[in-house]
Amino acid sequence: MPDHSQKQDVTIYDIAEALGVSPSTVSRSLKEHPSISKETIRKVRKQAKKMGYRSNIFAQNLRRQKTNIIGVIVPRLNSHFMSSAISGMEKVANKNHYKIIISQSHEQAVNEASNVEMMLEQRVDGLIVSLAYNTMDLHHFDAITEQHTPLIFFDRVADLPNSTNVVIDNYQAAYKMTNHLIDEGCSRIVHITGNTSRNVYSGRLKGYKEALLEHQLSYDSDLVFINDLREEDGEQVARKILEMDQLPDAVFASNDVCAVSCMALLQEHGIEIPRDIAIAGFNNDPISRFVKPKITTVDYDGERVGEVVAQNLINHLEGDDHISITNTIVLNSDLIIRDSSRKQDAG
Amino acid sequence: MPDHSQKQDVTIYDIAEALGVSPSTVSRSLKEHPSISKETIRKVRKQAKKMGYRSNIFAQNLRRQKTNIIGVIVPRLNSHFMSSAISGMEKVANKNHYKIIISQSHEQAVNEASNVEMMLEQRVDGLIVSLAYNTMDLHHFDAITEQHTPLIFFDRVADLPNSTNVVIDNYQAAYKMTNHLIDEGCSRIVHITGNTSRNVYSGRLKGYKEALLEHQLSYDSDLVFINDLREEDGEQVARKILEMDQLPDAVFASNDVCAVSCMALLQEHGIEIPRDIAIAGFNNDPISRFVKPKITTVDYDGERVGEVVAQNLINHLEGDDHISITNTIVLNSDLIIRDSSRKQDAG
Repeated sequence: MPDHSQKQDVTIYDIAEALGVSPSTVSRSLKEHPSISKETIRKVRKQAKKMGYRSNIFAQNLRRQKTNIIGVIVPRLNSHFMSSAISGMEKVANKNHYKIIISQSHEQAVNEASNVEMMLEQRVDGLIVSLAYNTMDLHHFDAITEQHTPLIFFDRVADLPNSTNVVIDNYQAAYKMTNHLIDEGCSRIVHITGNTSRNVYSGRLKGYKEALLEHQLSYDSDLVFINDLREEDGEQVARKILEMDQLPDAVFASNDVCAVSCMALLQEHGIEIPRDIAIAGFNNDPISRFVKPKITTVDYDGERVGEVVAQNLINHLEGDDHISITNTIVLNSDLIIRDSSRKQDAG
Repeated sequence: MPDHSQKQDVTIYDIAEALGVSPSTVSRSLKEHPSISKETIRKVRKQAKKMGYRSNIFAQNLRRQKTNIIGVIVPRLNSHFMSSAISGMEKVANKNHYKIIISQSHEQAVNEASNVEMMLEQRVDGLIVSLAYNTMDLHHFDAITEQHTPLIFFDRVADLPNSTNVVIDNYQAAYKMTNHLIDEGCSRIVHITGNTSRNVYSGRLKGYKEALLEHQLSYDSDLVFINDLREEDGEQVARKILEMDQLPDAVFASNDVCAVSCMALLQEHGIEIPRDIAIAGFNNDPISRFVKPKITTVDYDGERVGEVVAQNLINHLEGDDHISITNTIVLNSDLIIRDSSRKQDAG
């Protein structure tokens, strides 16, 4: 059977006819088979290019059962961290001749499940996922693991056997940040975070609590706000802070967007940052550097996370990696101390 | 021939055997053929689900020559505008059962060409492109148009027959912005923009010039800076401004990142915004709202652009759209006037 499926496509038979050689010579030339001379390979390639020949990747894929497609499911694409992570994945994938198919769960488990279904139908070679805000039940990944399709979670990860997690040490980062704020003289520290069913947020909350405990500061649940960490959520917390009988002396938010919007509303009401209230965020979004004062944050490099995730998956797919797929990769993350939390200097 | 290609896959024959019905009954049940009773459809579906049956999308695609994959090539993914545009595309594609394959040119024509090649090999149903910074020759799109694969450009578009462009009126937006600055009393207006081979930047430069001309203000090429519009480019322009014998009274940058970084450096050197120099940007990135003063900008809604682009392409692919693929769609864009350019109020 000729290797083609579209009538208008040029086949190896057409090339063979044009050159007066056998189809198998054309086929082997295109694969650079050692039995074919360099001169013939050159001639065949030239003719193939001239005639617009394209090997039928589809038919090839059908035979070898490999699509070179990596599926990516994320809560949403348009945050700085997430678009940087996807940029990093695309860079590594492209270099290795893989393609990236993307989809968004819009923070809903039900969409995540249907996106997994779509990725299965597309026969992706591997799947990369950051979980939706409200995903509890993980059964929608069963079909992936059952057919041994490699599965990598990043940022918001899951406790699933036969999958790899790429994370930072969220506990440690939040612990260090809270310690820093305490070192700057803060003792009533507001923490704004997300749904604690997600590892990233539960880890940060634990780190926050641990630092308080170590300094004999009492944990006050009225100072912890759990929300969606959007711009409006930061403003909402700022309004609640302004109504408190005793103002807090610091706010540590689980992302920079929320930290920035909270700070802006506090400033509008005459609160001096960091003198009255110190501010800290998370992620090192560009926005954290452009506000005044610049915001202390945790460097969480999306581009690098994306590169590591994609490289790990591709190594596994190419069989370069003899480590089992079941493991956790913890990336470093550092505090970036800026003016928004330098209470001591502010006097 | 059974509709499967992987030996371990469950086929309609297996389902038929398990239920004691004919394979054609299974096949028709799965397609909800009207000749099959609802009860039988229910039974077959239940059994198919139980056995983990998956219709072979690959084989189906091979037959009908449709992949339901849309290729997207953009300069880079991690700008607010671009990630929002891709988010909009994904939303519309997902709803219509299309998948999005993404790739980045990293602003290089040579990468763009190889990405086009990759998309062709993937047999995308349609291609969406925003051009790289330095793309001049458009021949790498020839194979796309020759095989009648629909091609849509957005933002940075091309003058190619048989393709659709989705844009805003860049000329008009820059003309209005420059007029606004002149109305605020400015007459020495710096313009920062990108490579004028790209429509977006040439259009904005023309609008800027036209507004000056209409107000009998002379065009001074020393006040126009052409660069890559990155954060560091905005700072670079600020340094050059600080060295000028006569300071300008306004800066109009072709994106918000550049406007913000230019403003920040000017402020560090004691320049009052907008009193000494008014600032205007482009895109309405979130960053434009969080700096002080908030930045006057052009509302260019990436999410909406992405939705329009994807919907237009899908309508065409589904044959819903009887308009020729050759046309231009111009989306509205409005000025958003904020404090950074309100010179009159600043006194």
